[in-house]
Amino acid sequence: MTVSLADLLLGRPLQSKEERAERCGPGAGVAIFGLDALSSAAYGPEAALTLLIPLGAAGLAYMLPISASIIALMAIVYFSYRQTVEAYPTGGGSYTVARQNLGPMAGLLAAAALMIDYVLTAAVGISAGIGALVSAVPRLEQHTLALCLVTLVIVTLANLRGVREVGALFLVPTYLFIGGLLGTIALGLVKALGSGGHPVAVAAPSALPAQTGVLSAWLLLQAFSNGCTAMTGVEAVSNGVRAFREPVVKSAQRTLTVIIAILAVMLAGIAYLTRAYHIGATAPGQPGYNSVLSQLVAAVAGKHAFYYVTMASILLILALSANTAFADFPRLCRAVAEDAYLPHSFASRGRRLVYSSGIYVLAGLCAFLLILFGGVTDRLIPLYAVGAFLAFTLSQAGMVMHWKRSRKRQARASMLVNGLGATATAMTVAVVIVAKFVQGAWVTVLLIPALIVLMWSVRRHYDGVAVEIASAAPLDVTRLKPPLVVVPIRAWDKVAEKALRFGLEISPDVRVVHVRSEEDTEDLRRRWPELAKVPATRAGLAAPELVVISSPYRYVISPILEYVLDLERKHPEREVAVLIPEMVERHWYHYLLHNQRAQWLKALLLLRGDQRINVISVPWHLRG
Amino acid sequence: MTVSLADLLLGRPLQSKEERAERCGPGAGVAIFGLDALSSAAYGPEAALTLLIPLGAAGLAYMLPISASIIALMAIVYFSYRQTVEAYPTGGGSYTVARQNLGPMAGLLAAAALMIDYVLTAAVGISAGIGALVSAVPRLEQHTLALCLVTLVIVTLANLRGVREVGALFLVPTYLFIGGLLGTIALGLVKALGSGGHPVAVAAPSALPAQTGVLSAWLLLQAFSNGCTAMTGVEAVSNGVRAFREPVVKSAQRTLTVIIAILAVMLAGIAYLTRAYHIGATAPGQPGYNSVLSQLVAAVAGKHAFYYVTMASILLILALSANTAFADFPRLCRAVAEDAYLPHSFASRGRRLVYSSGIYVLAGLCAFLLILFGGVTDRLIPLYAVGAFLAFTLSQAGMVMHWKRSRKRQARASMLVNGLGATATAMTVAVVIVAKFVQGAWVTVLLIPALIVLMWSVRRHYDGVAVEIASAAPLDVTRLKPPLVVVPIRAWDKVAEKALRFGLEISPDVRVVHVRSEEDTEDLRRRWPELAKVPATRAGLAAPELVVISSPYRYVISPILEYVLDLERKHPEREVAVLIPEMVERHWYHYLLHNQRAQWLKALLLLRGDQRINVISVPWHLRG
Repeated sequence: MTVSLADLLLGRPLQSKEERAERCGPGAGVAIFGLDALSSAAYGPEAALTLLIPLGAAGLAYMLPISASIIALMAIVYFSYRQTVEAYPTGGGSYTVARQNLGPMAGLLAAAALMIDYVLTAAVGISAGIGALVSAVPRLEQHTLALCLVTLVIVTLANLRGVREVGALFLVPTYLFIGGLLGTIALGLVKALGSGGHPVAVAAPSALPAQTGVLSAWLLLQAFSNGCTAMTGVEAVSNGVRAFREPVVKSAQRTLTVIIAILAVMLAGIAYLTRAYHIGATAPGQPGYNSVLSQLVAAVAGKHAFYYVTMASILLILALSANTAFADFPRLCRAVAEDAYLPHSFASRGRRLVYSSGIYVLAGLCAFLLILFGGVTDRLIPLYAVGAFLAFTLSQAGMVMHWKRSRKRQARASMLVNGLGATATAMTVAVVIVAKFVQGAWVTVLLIPALIVLMWSVRRHYDGVAVEIASAAPLDVTRLKPPLVVVPIRAWDKVAEKALRFGLEISPDVRVVHVRSEEDTEDLRRRWPELAKVPATRAGLAAPELVVISSPYRYVISPILEYVLDLERKHPEREVAVLIPEMVERHWYHYLLHNQRAQWLKALLLLRGDQRINVISVPWHLRG
Repeated sequence: MTVSLADLLLGRPLQSKEERAERCGPGAGVAIFGLDALSSAAYGPEAALTLLIPLGAAGLAYMLPISASIIALMAIVYFSYRQTVEAYPTGGGSYTVARQNLGPMAGLLAAAALMIDYVLTAAVGISAGIGALVSAVPRLEQHTLALCLVTLVIVTLANLRGVREVGALFLVPTYLFIGGLLGTIALGLVKALGSGGHPVAVAAPSALPAQTGVLSAWLLLQAFSNGCTAMTGVEAVSNGVRAFREPVVKSAQRTLTVIIAILAVMLAGIAYLTRAYHIGATAPGQPGYNSVLSQLVAAVAGKHAFYYVTMASILLILALSANTAFADFPRLCRAVAEDAYLPHSFASRGRRLVYSSGIYVLAGLCAFLLILFGGVTDRLIPLYAVGAFLAFTLSQAGMVMHWKRSRKRQARASMLVNGLGATATAMTVAVVIVAKFVQGAWVTVLLIPALIVLMWSVRRHYDGVAVEIASAAPLDVTRLKPPLVVVPIRAWDKVAEKALRFGLEISPDVRVVHVRSEEDTEDLRRRWPELAKVPATRAGLAAPELVVISSPYRYVISPILEYVLDLERKHPEREVAVLIPEMVERHWYHYLLHNQRAQWLKALLLLRGDQRINVISVPWHLRG
């Protein structure tokens, strides 16, 4: 067998038995399910600081209380999700939890929120990664969008190959990122404390602008809303519990703890050091843009090897954090499709045991967003937090109902923990919608009901079909007769003979239809007795009838179609079977050369006939 | 039936009987087959003048001899093609004439040259039309490419609707263009002669640049080569003779005469008036670009209503001149496909009696060229003339052979006319290749052999298949046995029952395969005797066997596939028939919801089985 382009890019097709081997432990788990949460540290604080730009140097003081609130919120959410992992060891995504405990509409609401969230996770991850790249190499700034799209293609291909290989690929940059950022924070803390809180920057950060705006509670709310994007992705572990090695729950919980602890340290460290080093955000999407982390690492450690390694790891893990979305979006779509709210194809695995349909849809939507917003992270942020926090809320609220119905000993305490989580995240949703409505949250607010209506319509269609075809009656064995067989042939050859043989095997009523154009020199009618009639009669079979139709304009499909439809009309009690030979090719591009007519005829027969026209594909394997 | 989007955009599907009505007389013929030739007047002279820019005002003097040579060449070609139309009343395209008289390789050479020519006709027509638009409305200049692509989409859709409606749509702008340009020339002549050859421009043309280059024979050759593009499209009538009303030959010849006469007057008039009014070309693709015709009409008649109407007609007929290519490219592909040098699908008509495949390919290639060259006409011109004149040459050379073999009285005189045409156009090809090689003619020179190899390979593949399947032996009636029928079912419902009934009609060996996942609550095994076994036995039929396969991971396709392949292996003497129910939907988008699994299973069965696995599609029409 030749190696196809698809094999090369996507890996050879996996047998279903190989599934077990595709599971991971906590080490790889932090990389796979933590990329999104951890990498949020690279854009969450920056998104908050961008809003504080009008306050100039005075704005930096407010990062500490904002970050403290976010970390507190994250702690609440952490304890909530620990309980979810334990209660749903087979995977407790917000959709599953909300649907099981709060009913189907809540499930759909959660699903819609999560879908939007995942698409934005992918888009923001990639755009922020490219943001890190153009901070380190400013002359690439003009190619931002093209770089984003190339990255998207790479991530998509990697995910079409399957989850384990992706984990291996992402391990190194994740741990480099964690090491680089925690190292920077530790070094910065030492320098700051050693200098009495006023360290000198090795490489000076961008100058802070003069104050142009005034402080207001509204501005702080907006900064908090933007900063909340630093928490997105912490739910990933609870969705993917099934992907962990035994003991599943312990592995998943340990992974979650490690991720949240590291993220909290990062947020606190960044808040403290930006203030100590006087680092503010620069105008996004403008020449001279320099990301907050880029300024921070340069200020603490200088623009040497350490800076470039850390920036490279930020680029890699940010761009690849989109991977969490690529792991989770298809899983979510599968769960929704299994409940018949999305087409069944989202529940079928592709050649590498991944849910390819979901991956294609996610890649398409993500490309659309990146193009629409020119690959600039700051323009995507306002759409982002609503979906994520809405999903948090529904998941926690679902858990409250779960514990209410549970008869376990500690159910009451667990209910309190999840209740606190639900309340805190619900309040955050309200704050984000109000604070960011005009800047983009309205898109999400409109999109969610639209998605719900779509999913509900899909389900209604499937339900309608199920009712239409339901039957409790036993098999009806009356009026069974062999079908009328029609074999369209172009000329007498091996393919025609094979089809005719199959026709004779299934029915004594076989009609061979030959469309004859003016240019055909050979008259099949003359040779028919010798070719088919005599051999069949001699073998005691009903002789196949030859029907020749003249077609002056070389039309082939419509005369056959008309003949078959007419036959169906004339025999209202009989089934009709049309035998169509199909060439099976060795190379995909040979399909351009054959079968087009067969496909058309088949589609028209099924569409224009009523229930009684069946189409039989008789394969002919070309040896070439 | 609801009106679909396709109906709205493309018109309702036409029955094949309606073909006759799609034919046109000379009036519409000038519009349909003359657009390309006539509109060449808008870019041919300009392409020559662009090369004379370095000569400044002195360059204008050379337009008269250059135009005179082109008109003389055109007269020769005109008499040649009159004879072709008469000799080939069913359509004498260069491909047909060259293949019939000079052999298949000459035919392929002509076909390749023409394909390239048609793609460029479409691209140049559209880009020059948008060039006229941005001359009249300079602030649109920055959107040149986008405007080109929008125009391409409109032309493509119009052509997918079919040829007659297109003719009606194009009649008005064509006659407006002819009237506008001939009117301008007449008025300009009167003014020029009245003022002793030195008329005063109403609206001053762009200032002529100072002379920066020197006159050379090489420069004049290049200008002549560029100017020759004014002749492209004159062969259109001879290709499309069949599309004319009776008397076919007379209608076609009259159309050809009218087209050539008008074109000759236009070229001569433009050459005289540009000199009289001191109008030169402006730098193409640069701000401040103003097309030669725009300057000319403004100089003669001023920038009033007449100017804008004429410019609008130029824009329309130029952009729509691409229509000749859209009428001829698919016809050419059909002729080539009927000789098996292109996939058969190019020879099948679509829903509106047009050859849709050809239209799609042309639109795709044209879009590619427009994007590659940014929609600037001047960059496309060097690729253009080679293909057109090579096709002219082969066609005329073929006619020489045609007359040589003919026994008609005037054959010798006719041979001389075509021989002169062949010689003149062959010399032009040589001149164009040499003069424009570096600027782009090399692309055409490389592309033509590549296309020939491609077409030759397609034919070789078809020939190989024909040899492989050829058979002279009569029908083999030994070893005929009813097939082993496999009916995969998901549950017991009306669809399953229908498939099972068909299975029982064609064979006594029926196996119903049910893939059971862990979550299925109902056990089909328990109900099987009551549902199928007992009714079948009672009716005296062999009872269908139920095969239940457990599949813990919800895989459905592979267990069925393995079962069928295993069955095929175990019964090497039997045919296997797999019955797959297909949902027939009322709305196209419902296809996203069904049949995916059926399509996969079907494809895998045909690919992985050997010749003995046949697939039967049993339709189920959803009422919705």
